[in-house]
Amino acid sequence: MLPEYRTSTDEVQLRKIIEQWAKAVHTKDIAGLTSNYAPDILLFDVVNELQHVGSDAVRNRAAAWLATFEGPIDYEVRDLRITTGDDVAFCHSLNRISATRQDGQHIDMWVRATVCFRKLGGTWMLTHEHSSVPFDGESGKASLELKP
Amino acid sequence: MLPEYRTSTDEVQLRKIIEQWAKAVHTKDIAGLTSNYAPDILLFDVVNELQHVGSDAVRNRAAAWLATFEGPIDYEVRDLRITTGDDVAFCHSLNRISATRQDGQHIDMWVRATVCFRKLGGTWMLTHEHSSVPFDGESGKASLELKP
Repeated sequence: MLPEYRTSTDEVQLRKIIEQWAKAVHTKDIAGLTSNYAPDILLFDVVNELQHVGSDAVRNRAAAWLATFEGPIDYEVRDLRITTGDDVAFCHSLNRISATRQDGQHIDMWVRATVCFRKLGGTWMLTHEHSSVPFDGESGKASLELKP
Repeated sequence: MLPEYRTSTDEVQLRKIIEQWAKAVHTKDIAGLTSNYAPDILLFDVVNELQHVGSDAVRNRAAAWLATFEGPIDYEVRDLRITTGDDVAFCHSLNRISATRQDGQHIDMWVRATVCFRKLGGTWMLTHEHSSVPFDGESGKASLELKP
């Protein structure tokens, strides 16, 4: 048996960051979404390219993504598990994105998210985010229909 | 400016785990590959399903994957960045997989990898792994041709 995951002030702070993040996606609040990004954040995103490096690049990427949708984005964070030490932490979850694209297409998909943090100057900052969907080995297509 | 990432005994240990992991993939050594997996590891893998939970499931998944290849797997870990605290750590890298499948198809692709650790009983254990390729938003296809 593993020791229990700590429930600490740190975990509460991290949970709040994820909640604010979800809220910011819903309202397409780019400043809120990226307020905890470390300057050297490295993002592995759901769609191309392989990676995005630095908070400016990640902010641009987020703004472009939010702009593809018409109206609010429904965003649900499920199975969030937070692991936190003194100044390093990570969490993962399954996130449902349900929204209508500017071209009228409705999407409803689940994304795997891993978010990694360092505590810098007393504040938890995102230094790494990895979001993805798996693909089907037979068809080579991204699996946008999978549900937890 | 952010403070420098620590170079510590912990980082050396974590780097060694990643190196052993790469070696174990190359030689298809399933025991070596999974020796540092925590019992409750949660895997987000490159291909379906959404997630695999627990070391037995992850070991089976790894064995099935290794078995799809004929001969050794060339495996290169690039841009490995390790962030470590006292008992929580994470790292990310771009990993090149070059190998021949049992059906004769040669694959040569780059995978984004995020690996998260807890120190349990003095030993770093993998509690979470997230491996993926992005997909192309236009075609819906997994992007297996991207290079760093």
